[in-house]
Amino acid sequence: MGTRLGDLVERFGGQLVGDPNLEVQGIAPLDSAGASHISFLSNSKLRALAAQSGAAALIVAPLDDQTVAATYEGARIVTTNPYAYFARVAQYFADLDAIVPAPGIHPSAVVHESAQVDPSAHVGPNAVIEAGAIVGAGVVIGAGCFVGRDAEIGAGTELFANVTFHAGCKIGKRGILHSGAVIGTDGFGFARENGVYIKIPQTGRVLMGDDVDIGANTTVDRGALADTVIEDGVKLDNQIQIGHNCHIGANTAMAGCVGVAGSARIGKNCTFGGAAMVLGHLEIADNVHISSGTMVSRSVLEPGQYTGFYPMAKNAEWEKSAAIVRNLNTMREKMRTLEKQIKQLTEATEQK
Amino acid sequence: MGTRLGDLVERFGGQLVGDPNLEVQGIAPLDSAGASHISFLSNSKLRALAAQSGAAALIVAPLDDQTVAATYEGARIVTTNPYAYFARVAQYFADLDAIVPAPGIHPSAVVHESAQVDPSAHVGPNAVIEAGAIVGAGVVIGAGCFVGRDAEIGAGTELFANVTFHAGCKIGKRGILHSGAVIGTDGFGFARENGVYIKIPQTGRVLMGDDVDIGANTTVDRGALADTVIEDGVKLDNQIQIGHNCHIGANTAMAGCVGVAGSARIGKNCTFGGAAMVLGHLEIADNVHISSGTMVSRSVLEPGQYTGFYPMAKNAEWEKSAAIVRNLNTMREKMRTLEKQIKQLTEATEQK
Amino acid sequence: MGTRLGDLVERFGGQLVGDPNLEVQGIAPLDSAGASHISFLSNSKLRALAAQSGAAALIVAPLDDQTVAATYEGARIVTTNPYAYFARVAQYFADLDAIVPAPGIHPSAVVHESAQVDPSAHVGPNAVIEAGAIVGAGVVIGAGCFVGRDAEIGAGTELFANVTFHAGCKIGKRGILHSGAVIGTDGFGFARENGVYIKIPQTGRVLMGDDVDIGANTTVDRGALADTVIEDGVKLDNQIQIGHNCHIGANTAMAGCVGVAGSARIGKNCTFGGAAMVLGHLEIADNVHISSGTMVSRSVLEPGQYTGFYPMAKNAEWEKSAAIVRNLNTMREKMRTLEKQIKQLTEATEQK
Repeated sequence: MGTRLGDLVERFGGQLVGDPNLEVQGIAPLDSAGASHISFLSNSKLRALAAQSGAAALIVAPLDDQTVAATYEGARIVTTNPYAYFARVAQYFADLDAIVPAPGIHPSAVVHESAQVDPSAHVGPNAVIEAGAIVGAGVVIGAGCFVGRDAEIGAGTELFANVTFHAGCKIGKRGILHSGAVIGTDGFGFARENGVYIKIPQTGRVLMGDDVDIGANTTVDRGALADTVIEDGVKLDNQIQIGHNCHIGANTAMAGCVGVAGSARIGKNCTFGGAAMVLGHLEIADNVHISSGTMVSRSVLEPGQYTGFYPMAKNAEWEKSAAIVRNLNTMREKMRTLEKQIKQLTEATEQK
Repeated sequence: MGTRLGDLVERFGGQLVGDPNLEVQGIAPLDSAGASHISFLSNSKLRALAAQSGAAALIVAPLDDQTVAATYEGARIVTTNPYAYFARVAQYFADLDAIVPAPGIHPSAVVHESAQVDPSAHVGPNAVIEAGAIVGAGVVIGAGCFVGRDAEIGAGTELFANVTFHAGCKIGKRGILHSGAVIGTDGFGFARENGVYIKIPQTGRVLMGDDVDIGANTTVDRGALADTVIEDGVKLDNQIQIGHNCHIGANTAMAGCVGVAGSARIGKNCTFGGAAMVLGHLEIADNVHISSGTMVSRSVLEPGQYTGFYPMAKNAEWEKSAAIVRNLNTMREKMRTLEKQIKQLTEATEQK
Repeated sequence: MGTRLGDLVERFGGQLVGDPNLEVQGIAPLDSAGASHISFLSNSKLRALAAQSGAAALIVAPLDDQTVAATYEGARIVTTNPYAYFARVAQYFADLDAIVPAPGIHPSAVVHESAQVDPSAHVGPNAVIEAGAIVGAGVVIGAGCFVGRDAEIGAGTELFANVTFHAGCKIGKRGILHSGAVIGTDGFGFARENGVYIKIPQTGRVLMGDDVDIGANTTVDRGALADTVIEDGVKLDNQIQIGHNCHIGANTAMAGCVGVAGSARIGKNCTFGGAAMVLGHLEIADNVHISSGTMVSRSVLEPGQYTGFYPMAKNAEWEKSAAIVRNLNTMREKMRTLEKQIKQLTEATEQK
């Protein structure tokens, strides 16, 4: 039993060219889609592939539609953003197959009597929910998760297995916290006296908006005195570290292994490539894009793309270039000497 | 009900200028402190801000006291290290609010009968403590923690939720292990034969001193044959990796995402910026400071600050500079050619 | 009670020179081995140390045997790969001391009735195994582990405490998953529309072969539509991130803190130094070796060693060289100017 194309268009929009009663069973990429699939063309370079696709139907942009339609004989859904349309249709089919955790609290879970768990929420085996915590409607708390005292989990948010969500922290609606994520751990704050570190208590919280995704084994520190803030729609991949008192603007996305030191203030709609690092107390404007492996060591107040990593080479070549980099100062001195000599020579030649 | 300034001075020292019976409710930064707060001036550049602070009292250094006192009318506690004083006062107020976990073992915890858990210790829900482990006085074992066979947790140490502390490892007094930390995982040791890796058993331990803090999702490998050693007062932030057989000297601190490969020997009182990396078998002297994002690829035997990361630029500029870096050898050759040519020209000119 | 040298040779091969009835109690490095130990010489530079070793017996290569035998009076096992031999003997002794977890399911574990757990497997306290999962013979599931629906754990594989192994993922025989590892978390896939991210469901799996080791707190994403594949014998250290749809060839090894972005295709027998990073959709051939701290930003189709990190220096020196690197374009322009000037000068001089 499949889904009618007419139903997809009714649900997600777009203009259907073809039989609304044609049924598809799922979504597949251009090169593997068959007669029971709908596929999508989100990159004009793949027009030729799309034109020959065996898919029952294609999601295409107006820009590509004419070219594709010249040879492709299946149905088409024409829409301005085929990739977003694909995401929605893929989510639709995934939801059909999804096994939704049943509402209720597993008997092995330990839920404090003062915690408020919505009856529609699912609390998995061996999860722990402490006093005063609030767990909203339709929330899923995976096996082995810990939700600290007075924490708040907004409606529809899912915590996969083994997430740690510390006391007083909050996340809004429809968020996803992946396994091993730790929210609200103490920030790294110490005063040094006579060579010894004295811990500064970290009494702020982590406040996260709606539609926030936090990757597996990612850590977000609570604020020291004020709060760490993550606005709506922020997407963090795995293995990321966010320091205390950071502020991350709405719809900013960071790829895996990024690190952001404390009190950095990052704008909206930014992207960070994998393993990019941001030093503490910096300000990053809206719409800034940091390339992978880049160390952000100063504030970035102007939108644009910024990069800084050493280009890879065969090891022998790198050794040569690295040795010169180490002595660039010498090279510059030599060049200055050359400039002087040439100036003298030129003058001498002209005088003759 | 607040705390008398006189009581703070009695407890933490410093010279009080003002009414000892004045009460404060908490500590706050200069810019947000009000009439119920004590605040602090730890950076002389903020003198002007301090002088206008609305705080009931200020912690100031002798150096700054006179300037501040000229206009600031509240009470002052004069002390040589206001930041350390602030840390202590903040900890004092945090402790007043803290909910201390009650002594005892939660019924859902699984504690082996041969483990020795001090009656004053707290063992949280679903924690697991294996045979022969020793848990000291006042220790807190958070929910979901695992403490392996024969491990030892010193008095006053706290394991936040979901820490893994493997067999035979030890930590001293007053330590803090944050959520997701893994202590005593196998080091990465293999022999290679006919293209296949043969595991070398990792039979050493992790031995940690007093006052050691380990960040969230930080991993510390056990030694291969000998032990991995972390001395007193070491502070490790989140997402750090410490390889097998490393030795980290007292009061060394590492910021988030640092990696230290196996058998590195790091001195006392060092600091490592975020995402710094240390190759294996290196030696780092005492009082060495490694900047963020720096790859330490050779031993550092002299104290000082060391840095090595590619400077960030707008992407288009980086592409230019990176292309040249890749060909610096060519540039050097050209320069040598120029030097020769100039030498010849100079000689030719002089002969005329 | 020790082990006879004769028994070791019978078990692991090699040519024994000495008394087969001599017993050893364990294995130790050259510098600490005593009369009850067997030791090994795997690095010819340590010949002198070996020759003076107090060990009862030595594992040596044919190449080194004669030199060592000239002064060393203990027994010798001569074998072509002493380091691999050491690994096997060390594993043998470690196994003698090992406390093997007893078969059976701990009463506090939550195992779904439809999961198939081999009677010889061990399931630790508070572990959770969901519907349809298959746990093979001799498998060890540590305390607090989560094994998702329909996941498969091959015979002899061990999950240390607090591993998360998500639904539908598979690992073959004799694997090791260290604590905090997360297998099969969602990949980082979104479509962007009107400034907002729409999640692309991640419906692929993680498929891992035999003899695969995954380090502590390492994360491996499930595929988006297809699967993430890790072939036989792959060894991943701690804190590694593997993106969705990656394919890692057999017997490739990665040191700690490595990151591999989505859809990278990595060959067999590769090695990656700590904190190396690989961008998405790249192809890395077999037998490629990437140095620590290197950003792999293009495909590598030729075997060999590749490197790219900024050389560390004293901070003051780095500041100079980094400032020049930032302006290398200017330096190149100056050099071009010099070249022109010299050409003109040379012509002028020659004309005279």
